Amino acid sequence: MTPGPGIQRTALPKGFLASGVNCGVRRYRPDIGILISEVPAVAAGVFTLNECKAAPVLYTQKLVPSDNIRAIITNSGQANAATGSIGMERNLMMVSAAAKSLNCDLDQVLVASTGVIGVHLDTDKILPSIPDLVSRANDAAESFALAILTTDLVPKTVTTTLNLSSGSIRITGISKGSGMIHPNMATMLGYILTDAKITKDYAASLVKKTADISFNMISVDGDSSTNDCSFLMANGASGVEVKTAEDFLAFEKAVTEVSIFLAKSIAADGEGATKLIEVEIKGADDLALARKAARGITLSPLIKTAVHGEDPNWGRILARLGAEKVPSSQLSQLTLKLQGILLFQDGSPVPFVREEVKALLKTVLVKIEIDLKSGPYSATAWGCDLSKKYVEVNTEYS
Amino acid sequence: MTPGPGIQRTALPKGFLASGVNCGVRRYRPDIGILISEVPAVAAGVFTLNECKAAPVLYTQKLVPSDNIRAIITNSGQANAATGSIGMERNLMMVSAAAKSLNCDLDQVLVASTGVIGVHLDTDKILPSIPDLVSRANDAAESFALAILTTDLVPKTVTTTLNLSSGSIRITGISKGSGMIHPNMATMLGYILTDAKITKDYAASLVKKTADISFNMISVDGDSSTNDCSFLMANGASGVEVKTAEDFLAFEKAVTEVSIFLAKSIAADGEGATKLIEVEIKGADDLALARKAARGITLSPLIKTAVHGEDPNWGRILARLGAEKVPSSQLSQLTLKLQGILLFQDGSPVPFVREEVKALLKTVLVKIEIDLKSGPYSATAWGCDLSKKYVEVNTEYS
Repeated sequence: MTPGPGIQRTALPKGFLASGVNCGVRRYRPDIGILISEVPAVAAGVFTLNECKAAPVLYTQKLVPSDNIRAIITNSGQANAATGSIGMERNLMMVSAAAKSLNCDLDQVLVASTGVIGVHLDTDKILPSIPDLVSRANDAAESFALAILTTDLVPKTVTTTLNLSSGSIRITGISKGSGMIHPNMATMLGYILTDAKITKDYAASLVKKTADISFNMISVDGDSSTNDCSFLMANGASGVEVKTAEDFLAFEKAVTEVSIFLAKSIAADGEGATKLIEVEIKGADDLALARKAARGITLSPLIKTAVHGEDPNWGRILARLGAEKVPSSQLSQLTLKLQGILLFQDGSPVPFVREEVKALLKTVLVKIEIDLKSGPYSATAWGCDLSKKYVEVNTEYS
Repeated sequence: MTPGPGIQRTALPKGFLASGVNCGVRRYRPDIGILISEVPAVAAGVFTLNECKAAPVLYTQKLVPSDNIRAIITNSGQANAATGSIGMERNLMMVSAAAKSLNCDLDQVLVASTGVIGVHLDTDKILPSIPDLVSRANDAAESFALAILTTDLVPKTVTTTLNLSSGSIRITGISKGSGMIHPNMATMLGYILTDAKITKDYAASLVKKTADISFNMISVDGDSSTNDCSFLMANGASGVEVKTAEDFLAFEKAVTEVSIFLAKSIAADGEGATKLIEVEIKGADDLALARKAARGITLSPLIKTAVHGEDPNWGRILARLGAEKVPSSQLSQLTLKLQGILLFQDGSPVPFVREEVKALLKTVLVKIEIDLKSGPYSATAWGCDLSKKYVEVNTEYS
């Protein structure tokens, strides 16, 4: 699987087009984007569980799953959340303008927004830009991937090709993240496009299942957003159907890999992040607890700052496991490894050479491995370190 | 009620003595302290709910409530948590040395520790210092208040005098906090001493009740500690018993005020903090949710950084309420005020003069008021802003 850094061209699956332009909400950067399927496509999504859902989320979640979607339009800079009835009206104006430019029905267009909460969509700028946005659409993912960014430093795209029983298909993933990233889809937008042919019910179950082990296992700062969405859109343009048992296995594996790649990209590009933290908990007798504890570690400011300082302060990890209610009986039998070095076992610290572990922490990927030795379940979560830059980025954002 | 800044002398209630010295675990600062009652006293406590409890917590929680306690010894610099059986042994050595110096029984001495997790108590330094520690004890709180600090900037003491039906009593509170402060008692130590006469059962219920609306409603960074304890110790040395209904009301009110004063002092002195954030949620139909939501706001890095930047980014507050599962029906009817200025009502933003609210944020106390307009319950939580200094303090601590 090839990641798509900003410069490299990520070709979309067959029958998809993408576009991103600057409409003037942001000063220079592209701030409105659209993904278009040339033919009506299957689309499914998962959405934020925040009770304060943005207008585009309230609107879009009623339309999916569907087998008749032509586009997803997305603006950045204004989240259109906490904006009341005016927010719903302006959301509809944006969708209507896109449907008109695409010459399709209103309910064939999905929408997502990201940006500042509590300000109204600047439709005076957005609406006039939409015909140009649609007309510029082409088969590369980059312009759209750029247009959806907020405080992200790099666009996040990935693409993979898969051979199924009746031919080859392509899957492309695009996402944005950065701040406010937390389990249950926090200010992240994810788009997985494929030219495979699948049903809307399968799309709906797959997007949920893969989000649970990817997007829902990342955390930047524990704040859960009003606007999170992750979409799976399949237009069948390859002519290849996912149909045999082997096809389904391979397809699910590929969508999972794309989702985890995007999730890790988001965590690694968290606001102010310099390191990607991967926490693996295994040997759990309770899957929900393993997931919660793994995410809890990625969420701890004390652990995040220690990782930032390349400080092997493993006691904070143990303390967090206890705070997450991993039973004391398991705390006294677990093993804890940092960068592969055993630091705690049998209820006691294992002597270690501090400078050696510090040296191993001088890298981008920091791995924390915990074996609870109590059962068959495991969970992996991703997060990032906490730097002064995070504070700087968030001190004055609105 | 008079706060006790570092210099001012806080006289202890009758029959109590305090002391703090440097034993050499820390370079210069006092790092071991003791509170002594001249006569056996009632003592009760509440303790961390973290499953990873430090040795002193495991030891002390078995001894209270009691009506036969002579002292509480406390060291700073080493938490004696995640230290296995060696940790329990060294904890007992420290307690034994204190009991010997006080010429009392082993089970008359309580103990608390705070500091780095996962390193063993340096008993070679601690034990020889204890006779000197005990012999220096006097009736001022300051030396003890200093000895228990970790990354706190200022000692936290408060004292109040109360007239009950049969005479006057005194209540003194001492605490430490700083990092790792979070609901359910996170690395904070609290000591409330009084010369009133009360029963151990009343002490046990009161220390729990007051902690729930003070120490359990503060948050610095959401990390819950292995070592939290809050104690209430009453030696009856005033000769005044809490006995009439009015006495109980007045006494409970005073202990609550002392607890809240200490709790706010801890939040205001959070690592890197420049502002104290007070969040009041009223009109709730569910007390547990009001408490959770108020604490959630004090915990949000996005809100904390916005407050730090004096940025009236109220949308983040609404988003957090939604993330804490305040129902959308309540989100669309609540009022939200920041520094007394109404910013959101009836589901929509209220236009405001940004520079005016920014000017109001240029102060130490930042108040967030939310009225859910749904029921009779209210909850108040305290936290602090998130600054670059927090990151600096925690990047290399061990």
